[in-house]
Amino acid sequence: MGVLAVLAAERKLVDAALDRLLPPSDAWPCRLHEAMRYAVFGGGKRVRPILARLTCRAAGGDPETILEAACALELIHTYSLVHDDLPALDNDTLRRGRSTVHVAYGEALAILVGDALLSEAFRVLGTYPGGDELAPRRVEACRLVAVAVGSSGMVGGQVEDLEATGQPPDSARLERIHRAKTGALLAASVELGAVLTGVDTPTRERFTRFGQSLGLLFQIADDILDVTGTASSLGKSPGKDAAAGKLTYPAVYGLPAARRKLSRLAAELRAEAVALEGRGGTLAAFVEYIASRDR
Amino acid sequence: MGVLAVLAAERKLVDAALDRLLPPSDAWPCRLHEAMRYAVFGGGKRVRPILARLTCRAAGGDPETILEAACALELIHTYSLVHDDLPALDNDTLRRGRSTVHVAYGEALAILVGDALLSEAFRVLGTYPGGDELAPRRVEACRLVAVAVGSSGMVGGQVEDLEATGQPPDSARLERIHRAKTGALLAASVELGAVLTGVDTPTRERFTRFGQSLGLLFQIADDILDVTGTASSLGKSPGKDAAAGKLTYPAVYGLPAARRKLSRLAAELRAEAVALEGRGGTLAAFVEYIASRDR
Repeated sequence: MGVLAVLAAERKLVDAALDRLLPPSDAWPCRLHEAMRYAVFGGGKRVRPILARLTCRAAGGDPETILEAACALELIHTYSLVHDDLPALDNDTLRRGRSTVHVAYGEALAILVGDALLSEAFRVLGTYPGGDELAPRRVEACRLVAVAVGSSGMVGGQVEDLEATGQPPDSARLERIHRAKTGALLAASVELGAVLTGVDTPTRERFTRFGQSLGLLFQIADDILDVTGTASSLGKSPGKDAAAGKLTYPAVYGLPAARRKLSRLAAELRAEAVALEGRGGTLAAFVEYIASRDR
Repeated sequence: MGVLAVLAAERKLVDAALDRLLPPSDAWPCRLHEAMRYAVFGGGKRVRPILARLTCRAAGGDPETILEAACALELIHTYSLVHDDLPALDNDTLRRGRSTVHVAYGEALAILVGDALLSEAFRVLGTYPGGDELAPRRVEACRLVAVAVGSSGMVGGQVEDLEATGQPPDSARLERIHRAKTGALLAASVELGAVLTGVDTPTRERFTRFGQSLGLLFQIADDILDVTGTASSLGKSPGKDAAAGKLTYPAVYGLPAARRKLSRLAAELRAEAVALEGRGGTLAAFVEYIASRDR
């Protein structure tokens, strides 16, 4: 099975699990649950849960056992998008070709949808995989994800991104923003897969470093796509980051240098993936997919 | 030591622990951390962490061991106030006599302060009290708090509160809103204290029911204060809920009936507190304090 078929099958599994985990739209309070589902089922690529599951397999575990916990990462990613899109933040009206949550449901509900998704993520992390003997792994999962998405991780990156908007190009600042804003949750996805599989500390650290570099790769690819993509392939307006004066790799280094950085990093990561999981593993193919995706 | 002295000593301990737990204002990203501290150190009564600690003592545990975990409740309570005060929600400019966070730091940062405080709460719950042998309690703490503050708890109550604003008085709806919006986190505070002390299931359930009723008592007292309090005693504008067309106990039942409900419930809760912790315990005095507070 090629990587695209694997990813399609993974997406299907993740989508089905998210559907089981989220409260139904006819449960009180219905409008909130409907809006949460609108936010989550908007055609996301499910990169973070898939990454956690591929890591679990690469570490010798059974990805079935971490399906629900991996979905918590997608709930968190979705919450961050809903809040980032708000008028007071990036003021985006379009996401994956549809109205953003605050356009569809109003600003108050969009704020609360984000809050509820973040809480739901920790409910899921506190529940799966079950059993008292796995409680130490489960609680470590809660802790590591909370650190990754908190004030010195994802939220911190968003704060600095807002502060840096319209400021002159600054490569150290760019690195700091991307490492926190996107990198932290992607690195946590890899780390979660490793921790829930029960790897030893050196292996965990190796996976964590791999996840951090993969987060960087993802962000460089994203920045390049913002310049080179089309509205129909992206499902959002291309060139928006540049127009908003955001710090991006092409803005700081120029497009050719950003592309060179992308291929160099992708080559390193493929080699590390092969070292981690052996030849022919899916993690290496996933790196390739991230580096070459067109949306 | 009278209950007021106990509460003052408790508040001091909780404040000191919150100060240790929160990142310092000079750690990156400084402005976010400064705003988080502005939100948390605004003269809160620390009702939820104190309640968790009093429950721990009533259940035969040592409240010192749950100090940090109890503080997570205050982080969550603060996040909920910061988001509730936002222009898109209650649009409050004054809280405990000071500018609300979005007035002091802007709307974008206020949204992110709330997000960061909620994440920080789960970091704390995932970390304290330490030790692998306590991991099952810690993970259950994460789960129960996440459920209490999620879409069918605190956030759900906030959604229905918004939907009910300006609607005709409706006692079933009022009950549902208060049970979720304020009651769920107060009940979770009691439950957290019991769970981290390691009580058996029937005892836990008894404490949980006690916490639910205490949440109701707290909310009735709050609603009455909104009608009878003064701006200087409340640190916020009195009559604001009534003017905003919010569902409150005095609005639904009238002030005298609301007061009767308050004293009846307070008497029941004092009796249950005595049954739980023996005569002369602090939980019963705490019930009295909640029922008779003037701010």
